[in-house]
Amino acid sequence: MTTSIKKIGVLTSGGDAPGMNAAIRAVVRACAFYNVECVGIYRGYQGMIEGDFKEMGPRAVKNIINKGGTVLKSARSKEFMTTEGRQKAHANLKENGIDALVVIGGDGSFTGAEIFNSEYKFPVIGIPGTIDNDIFGTSHTLGYDTALNTVVEAIDKIRDTANSHNRLFFVEVMGRDAGHIALNAGIGAGAEEILIPEENLGLDRLIDSLRKSKESGKTSSIVVVAEGDKIGKNVFELKDYVEENMPEYDVRVSVLGHMQRGGTPSCFDRVLASRLGVKAVETLLEGKTNLMVGLLQDKVTLTPLEQAIKGQSRVDAELVKVSDIISI
Amino acid sequence: MTTSIKKIGVLTSGGDAPGMNAAIRAVVRACAFYNVECVGIYRGYQGMIEGDFKEMGPRAVKNIINKGGTVLKSARSKEFMTTEGRQKAHANLKENGIDALVVIGGDGSFTGAEIFNSEYKFPVIGIPGTIDNDIFGTSHTLGYDTALNTVVEAIDKIRDTANSHNRLFFVEVMGRDAGHIALNAGIGAGAEEILIPEENLGLDRLIDSLRKSKESGKTSSIVVVAEGDKIGKNVFELKDYVEENMPEYDVRVSVLGHMQRGGTPSCFDRVLASRLGVKAVETLLEGKTNLMVGLLQDKVTLTPLEQAIKGQSRVDAELVKVSDIISI
Amino acid sequence: MTTSIKKIGVLTSGGDAPGMNAAIRAVVRACAFYNVECVGIYRGYQGMIEGDFKEMGPRAVKNIINKGGTVLKSARSKEFMTTEGRQKAHANLKENGIDALVVIGGDGSFTGAEIFNSEYKFPVIGIPGTIDNDIFGTSHTLGYDTALNTVVEAIDKIRDTANSHNRLFFVEVMGRDAGHIALNAGIGAGAEEILIPEENLGLDRLIDSLRKSKESGKTSSIVVVAEGDKIGKNVFELKDYVEENMPEYDVRVSVLGHMQRGGTPSCFDRVLASRLGVKAVETLLEGKTNLMVGLLQDKVTLTPLEQAIKGQSRVDAELVKVSDIISI
Amino acid sequence: MTTSIKKIGVLTSGGDAPGMNAAIRAVVRACAFYNVECVGIYRGYQGMIEGDFKEMGPRAVKNIINKGGTVLKSARSKEFMTTEGRQKAHANLKENGIDALVVIGGDGSFTGAEIFNSEYKFPVIGIPGTIDNDIFGTSHTLGYDTALNTVVEAIDKIRDTANSHNRLFFVEVMGRDAGHIALNAGIGAGAEEILIPEENLGLDRLIDSLRKSKESGKTSSIVVVAEGDKIGKNVFELKDYVEENMPEYDVRVSVLGHMQRGGTPSCFDRVLASRLGVKAVETLLEGKTNLMVGLLQDKVTLTPLEQAIKGQSRVDAELVKVSDIISI
Repeated sequence: MTTSIKKIGVLTSGGDAPGMNAAIRAVVRACAFYNVECVGIYRGYQGMIEGDFKEMGPRAVKNIINKGGTVLKSARSKEFMTTEGRQKAHANLKENGIDALVVIGGDGSFTGAEIFNSEYKFPVIGIPGTIDNDIFGTSHTLGYDTALNTVVEAIDKIRDTANSHNRLFFVEVMGRDAGHIALNAGIGAGAEEILIPEENLGLDRLIDSLRKSKESGKTSSIVVVAEGDKIGKNVFELKDYVEENMPEYDVRVSVLGHMQRGGTPSCFDRVLASRLGVKAVETLLEGKTNLMVGLLQDKVTLTPLEQAIKGQSRVDAELVKVSDIISI
Repeated sequence: MTTSIKKIGVLTSGGDAPGMNAAIRAVVRACAFYNVECVGIYRGYQGMIEGDFKEMGPRAVKNIINKGGTVLKSARSKEFMTTEGRQKAHANLKENGIDALVVIGGDGSFTGAEIFNSEYKFPVIGIPGTIDNDIFGTSHTLGYDTALNTVVEAIDKIRDTANSHNRLFFVEVMGRDAGHIALNAGIGAGAEEILIPEENLGLDRLIDSLRKSKESGKTSSIVVVAEGDKIGKNVFELKDYVEENMPEYDVRVSVLGHMQRGGTPSCFDRVLASRLGVKAVETLLEGKTNLMVGLLQDKVTLTPLEQAIKGQSRVDAELVKVSDIISI
Repeated sequence: MTTSIKKIGVLTSGGDAPGMNAAIRAVVRACAFYNVECVGIYRGYQGMIEGDFKEMGPRAVKNIINKGGTVLKSARSKEFMTTEGRQKAHANLKENGIDALVVIGGDGSFTGAEIFNSEYKFPVIGIPGTIDNDIFGTSHTLGYDTALNTVVEAIDKIRDTANSHNRLFFVEVMGRDAGHIALNAGIGAGAEEILIPEENLGLDRLIDSLRKSKESGKTSSIVVVAEGDKIGKNVFELKDYVEENMPEYDVRVSVLGHMQRGGTPSCFDRVLASRLGVKAVETLLEGKTNLMVGLLQDKVTLTPLEQAIKGQSRVDAELVKVSDIISI
Repeated sequence: MTTSIKKIGVLTSGGDAPGMNAAIRAVVRACAFYNVECVGIYRGYQGMIEGDFKEMGPRAVKNIINKGGTVLKSARSKEFMTTEGRQKAHANLKENGIDALVVIGGDGSFTGAEIFNSEYKFPVIGIPGTIDNDIFGTSHTLGYDTALNTVVEAIDKIRDTANSHNRLFFVEVMGRDAGHIALNAGIGAGAEEILIPEENLGLDRLIDSLRKSKESGKTSSIVVVAEGDKIGKNVFELKDYVEENMPEYDVRVSVLGHMQRGGTPSCFDRVLASRLGVKAVETLLEGKTNLMVGLLQDKVTLTPLEQAIKGQSRVDAELVKVSDIISI
């Protein structure tokens, strides 16, 4: 490790996600391992502007690996979008001797990091943390695997009652403009149909598919709908549409909502967070900057932040086909 | 056991609830134990009318004690509300040699059982099964304890993200016109305020309470709202009202929905279901009828179905007070 | 509230149990509500002797209601069994202006409290906290309901593999000399046999029962064994004995162990802890002492500590019968 | 699809694993999708010998995607290791018109499949199902991800009580001769040390490490031990050794046992099982044989069964290093 970095700041920004605490813990402990100091920055960029800092030794992060949310809290900062805001932030970092930053968040957070770096040549490394899995350059973002388990557990419960009553349920799940959660959790939950932004099934085909389901002997059905779905109707309008066109169905809606963002992280997310947190510190200490650490083909990799921001994370076409086959 | 009962029918009716399968299992096995036959009736009273019956021996109910929903399925039957419907149902029972009925459900289901008994002198025993805990004559209905755990687990997840962002969440929970789920899960989840139908807090006091919360240093808050709350606004209107009056708050809404009705039953619900199922069979075999088996003061008890239907299950005033004290 | 009590100390002692944190939170907040100060005492009586104290305001206990273990930590203190130890402890309390104690723990902890009160006329109230449910004067101890759920969830998993292989499993559960956990979790998990200290089934009857199980068509079986069972063999010896006498069985053993003591408390335990914590403070403020707060017939009650220590918590004979019936 | 395959048999063999049911479901439904018949073979190769078959249409596998264990049951068959056994098995397949086999299991099961193919030119495809993740040619076996979550949840509970009492826990986890579960779950659970067969830490270094832990301020510790660990002592001997050498520690042991093999599969395992099940059928229909479907670098791939059996699945050196760094 050849850099002159002596103190690394770490922050969480944007929507919180399970595994962020495990990543904070890994960053803090990797700093201790490599003999650099570590400072926790509260409430993302806003805390950077307000100087809301706290020195963190390895014991400061004990018993957080299994906690949802983020002990450093998160916030969206309008002030950081201004030159003045970033100036204040930079002054605070300098005053506190902070040499480099690890930013845990999504593409909005990475954009802030990029701009900050371009203005102040401040070393920054990003760790992708969002349940939506919509970041280019990593097969998995922190929190995504946990959210998938949360969603399938919730749909398992809904299926109990759907089965008992021969009902059709529309279940809306998160994911912003990406269908990753809907597609994977839909397959995992044994959904009959999955509506995602990337594939516009169309209303007619949905009705067709439900008719076939019924004819094939299915007595209850689950349709998983991504919040960003482009079918042109929200989940409550979908219910109305189906009820009009298939009056034989008793249709219900469930919007899973914010519980998808929380919860004890899965083992996968804890391990991923630990790997990415360590790698982020090592990458800074190697003198690199403007990179996102991520997981590609099971290996920890580096992707330029710029690509991570601009690139698009696509759903796997094979999965769409698998979904069609196994819902027969 | 002195009756001439030789074959008992068992059905689930109304909304399904975790623990119904455990109760079915207990009824079936108690029949085997006491050497009477047992017949499962599918889809509640509707299946009784349609003759949708199945003989059930003790092995037929293996591995269902831990399953949510009901293997006998449930339905609401308009036909059973007619004299003709009940006539058909009675004819089917006679034809199949069924002497007595165990009805697992809520007050609507019990009303059906009462009328059926009054017309045909058919022995009936009720087992209270509903997550809402709104049945007089039992401290706990089947599924209630499980639903409480489902709700607190969901709110625990929501709290992760509420804490990370300093937010206020309104969480709507089930319970029809009763505040049991809201009050108990609200206490269990550490809610700042709990809005239940039995206590009209009023909008002004809600705002007052949230102001005090904020002043006392709380940075995030959960308000649990019972679906039958009488405050005069639904949960989305509440959000708007609070945002207007307290613009400093970032308010979110989560409606937990149907996942509350499903899931693996808790140990409490499994044991309760086992006790009530056995007692229902024993009570029929003792020649009694028109009773609900329930739990009062930790003991299995009998309550006339008429009282169970007309009586009111009240929330405990001590709990309301405890909630006020610990949310300080 | 008429006493001169101005500052209450709270400690956890003996084995930890889920719900202890919820009880600490309730004690701290009830103190705030009634305008008395509250001091957390770390590591039970040992911390009292060493003066390991911390003032606790209502915000100090935020976000702990859902945490297993105890934030005040627990310990067994040999020194507190000596006159000198208790003298030091008393001096520390006086020095810190602590007027009264809430002790969360089991009968050993209550015995310490009783002796301390008899020597120093120091007001003490006990809250029963142990997963074993072996305290007289309360139908439920803190942590018991959670432990039951932990055990049935573990056995549900074991049953998956038992069913897949037609195996017999002996599962040892906690409970010290009491069979509460084994009996209730055994019923909840659908166990074929339950061996508890209170009922000596005998080895011959066990073999008989397993034979009947097999003849009745059961292809796999779970036998739940309480750790304090008096059958004269430990769970591994039981395995050997059954394998010798029933070579057709593939027998396995699982000792669930310490995971039974931890975990997120159930809603029941959180609500119970909240009620008992509030009542403990109120009871002290009413000038009472040497009492245990508990739950009897669904109501919060007071039992003299002496009775709580000497009395015996019995398993319900009805449950033993139910277990026999439903395992047919 | 160009083969003459008209009927595919599917079986589960060896130790069961969560996700096997989801794989069975995917095989059955893919057969329906591609218009070939599907037959479930009970109890692995033994059922093949005994002709324990059942035709399975797409509705036969409803509501099993979320169930642990295997609805087809599993068994180890000594008879299948004989020429006569395999002859009987082959005769049964022919008699039932079964053209090809999907074998879900571990390397023992694959060896059986290979031999069977070499003798009868019978098309076989393997799906790796075992919690141990010890199969070459796939990054993940079915059940492995679920087992990791089961283990970290159990250790989370143990940590509650470890923290409350300042204890050292040795937790033994499954994995046969592979350290995958121990290493990943150990990192996920925040273990201080992880003992795996692939790395012999040695007793002296273990003591050293625990000493450093203590000095660094850790008050409780978890050591995760793989069942196949080569340190020369079992987990109870380890306890004794540490207590002798570090009398300041209160050491406990927990052997997690068979609960690791069961439970509701994680979303990951359900999706993986769905993908592999579909691919297994497609591969047979493409006229291929003697291959294992697996996941490599996030893609479904084919590996010759022979390699899958002989190759070795290694733990990732990066993970060992990460574990060292974050347990500082």
